[in-house]
Parts: sequence; structure tokens; C-alpha cells
Amino acid sequence: MLTAHTIKVLQSLDKKKFRQKYNLFLVEGNKIISELADSSFKVKEIFSLNPENIPLKEVTVHQISESELKKISLLQNPKDSVAVCYLKDEEKDFEEKDLQLVLDGIQDPGNLGTIIRLADWFGIEQIVCSHDTVDFYNPKVIQATMGSFTRVNILYTDLPEFFAKTKNENIGTDMDGESIYDFKKKEKMNIILGNEVNGIRDFTESVLDHKITIPRFGKSQSTESLNVAVAAGIVLGQLFAK
Amino acid sequence: MLTAHTIKVLQSLDKKKFRQKYNLFLVEGNKIISELADSSFKVKEIFSLNPENIPLKEVTVHQISESELKKISLLQNPKDSVAVCYLKDEEKDFEEKDLQLVLDGIQDPGNLGTIIRLADWFGIEQIVCSHDTVDFYNPKVIQATMGSFTRVNILYTDLPEFFAKTKNENIGTDMDGESIYDFKKKEKMNIILGNEVNGIRDFTESVLDHKITIPRFGKSQSTESLNVAVAAGIVLGQLFAK
Repeated sequence: MLTAHTIKVLQSLDKKKFRQKYNLFLVEGNKIISELADSSFKVKEIFSLNPENIPLKEVTVHQISESELKKISLLQNPKDSVAVCYLKDEEKDFEEKDLQLVLDGIQDPGNLGTIIRLADWFGIEQIVCSHDTVDFYNPKVIQATMGSFTRVNILYTDLPEFFAKTKNENIGTDMDGESIYDFKKKEKMNIILGNEVNGIRDFTESVLDHKITIPRFGKSQSTESLNVAVAAGIVLGQLFAK
Repeated sequence: MLTAHTIKVLQSLDKKKFRQKYNLFLVEGNKIISELADSSFKVKEIFSLNPENIPLKEVTVHQISESELKKISLLQNPKDSVAVCYLKDEEKDFEEKDLQLVLDGIQDPGNLGTIIRLADWFGIEQIVCSHDTVDFYNPKVIQATMGSFTRVNILYTDLPEFFAKTKNENIGTDMDGESIYDFKKKEKMNIILGNEVNGIRDFTESVLDHKITIPRFGKSQSTESLNVAVAAGIVLGQLFAK
């Protein structure tokens, strides 16, 4: 059923270059695929072990065998189905939201996926990413979002240009900022998260209106930092506290 | 310099079975290796591209080449050095702490590592794991802790036996518990975190004294959950709030 050409194209979607060339990306597993139904993402076709379990209507579903699934899946442990989806058109008009996450060079796909899932939980509608942030169509990101990528608008832009235009206050985490337990939330905020190793870039730091810190209660000075997604969770958890 | 036998033994330490057989595990990268100095972990020997950069004294350091490093490293992107360390003796006498994390079947090495790092940040001295929680000596866990495994006591035990003995109150996260923003912290607490897919086991749920929930602010009902390490961060961030 699957031609060698199809297999080659689908496998190539592990790489950003080929996702852009073919304008396609993969979503794997019925649970996440079902979330595409209520989203603005367009599905080209689906390959599935059990087409009768696919909850999407008006989409061509091809039955495939376990060995065919292994050939096209980009996951270490393939699920039941693989949906081939079109990339979204780049947003032409940028619409600012009152609460946005800004990612300044996040590299780890698991971290980006977890941050998208976190944004969805707190109802944050938009994530603004620097161009060097990992591509959210990366299969590991899509998987880590658990479907949340369908509900959060994620865009890539030149951050200096973005900062020149934004009307929100810019809040960044830092080792010597105001405690998150004292910080009063603002009406319009960009919460900025830096790279896993290097943190927030110097330029970005220069545009911060507020620096906030998660106090460390452990005694060791060697504990340098928290995982970026966990830090984001703690900050948001506190911002949403009554 | 490296014999075929040594390479074979070190490579085998990717698997729990062989870590237990040889009573050894690997710690990679000078940054994390340096944290072993102040810890109770014993280092057998170190293989390094630049022995002069190794901050540990009284340890045999062997100079190796880049190609040798690639052969023994368990990481996708090898660092500068690999330390071969002895597993810790199993604790005979269990000493309860006033605030402990209890992990009920965490499977993902990245999640466990991130949770250990989080515990270290908040000064939580002990993590009690069910036997089916991923082994913390797993190289991906060690790496994700960023060295925090040297400062948090991690033990594996039969959870029903542990719950029969513990004097702490058992707090678990749940979809319909008390809001974390209302929950008043207790003097002695076990914070229980469940498996990534199935959550807390039925037995564990039956011993909970309190169920707590992180309120969801997003509108979609499809947003089912948060990553377990992020959820742990939000809960701890709130418990430590003034």
C-alpha cells in the first residue's frame, strides 16, 4: 500500500528542512490526532492500523500494517496512527495578547512541548519564539504537547523587532530579581524564558521591565537552576494565585 | 589505553541489569562530575579528554582521545569526561523527613531527573520511589538532574509497606481535589506524584489524606493534564509561598 516514495517523504519530515519543503508535518497517535478535529490544522491523510478508530471525518484514512507503521513513524515506540498535516500559513498580522510567553532560544524539544502544554493549561493563547527556538513541528515537540499545540498560537519572529513593537511589560526570570511571591502581576505581560544553558540573551535582558526570581530554599549553592519548563510552571502557578 | 573489555563494561552501564552486576554507574561532564566532590558517592576512576580540568582529588584520571570518549559515553553528544562511580549502599534504616516526594511509577528518565533537580531547589532531602519507578542511575536521569542527584536521598521501596509506616500526611494531585491555592500545608507531608499516563495507582489513592488540584484556567476541556515535573513544580512553588 505504501510506496517507497511515500515512505521516504514521510521519514524526511523528521527534519525541519523537509517539513518546509513539503509543507507537511506528522502527528502520531489517535489521542493527539483526535485533537486536530477542532483545530485550524488541515489534515492531508492518515495512515492507521485501525481506520475505524479514527475520530476525524472527511479525511482519507489508509489502513497499514504494523511493519509499515514502523517504517513511517518518527517515534521510538510507534502508536496506532500517523496523520500527515499541512503546516499553518505564517501569520501576516500579529495580534498581541495580554499574556504571552516569549521563548528566547529554547533548544530542547521536550521542554518546548511541555511549555506549550503548560500555556494551554493556563489559557495562554500565544507563544512568541525567537527564530533560533526549536521548531514546534518537530515530532518530539508535537508529542510532548499532548495535543496542546492545536490550541496555542505559536509564532516565530525576530525578537528585537517584536520587543520594539510590543505594548506588554517584559518580565524575565533571573537569579537576582524580585521574588515571585512579592511580584504583582501586570495587566499586559510578556513572560520571557531563556535558553536552557545560557538563559536570556543580553539584548533581551536589556529590554526587561521586571526581573523576577523563584527563591531557592535548598541550602546548596551548587543548585544553579531549575528546568526551564518547571520554572515557567512555578512562575505561572504563582501569577494565577488569588 | 582503553581495553576492549573496559569499553564493553562501561557501555553495558546503560542498562540497569549491568549497573547492578558491576555495582557501577556513569556520570558525564566536568560540571556534574565536580559535584561528586562534596557528595557521599565514591568515584572509581575518570576518563577525560583533559585530565587537568578534573576538579576531584585522589581519583585516578586517565587521559583518553575523542574517539575513545565516543566509545564509552552513553550520551548522544559526549561531554569532556566520564566518571565511573559506585552505586550507593541501599539504606538499611529508613529515616523519615518532614517533607518528602513519593513517586508512584514515574517512567520517563527526563521527568525523574527534572523532579530530583526541583527537589534540590526547594531543599527537599528525600524522594521515595516505588520499585517500578525508573532507576535514577539511568544516564538520562543523571544528566537531567544537572548534579542534583548528589544532594537528594533517593530510595526505592515497596510503597504499600512505606505507607503503612509513614507518619506524614499523604497528599496527592487529582482532577477534583482542593485547589492548591486554598490548601494549607501540613507539618509533615508526603507529596505523591503518579505515573505519566495512569496517574496515581488505586492503592496509593486509597491512602491519601488530601487530594489537591492545580486549577485549569484554559477553556478547553481537552487539556487533560500537565507534565508531572511541571505539576510538581507548581505544587511546591505554592507550598513554599508565604
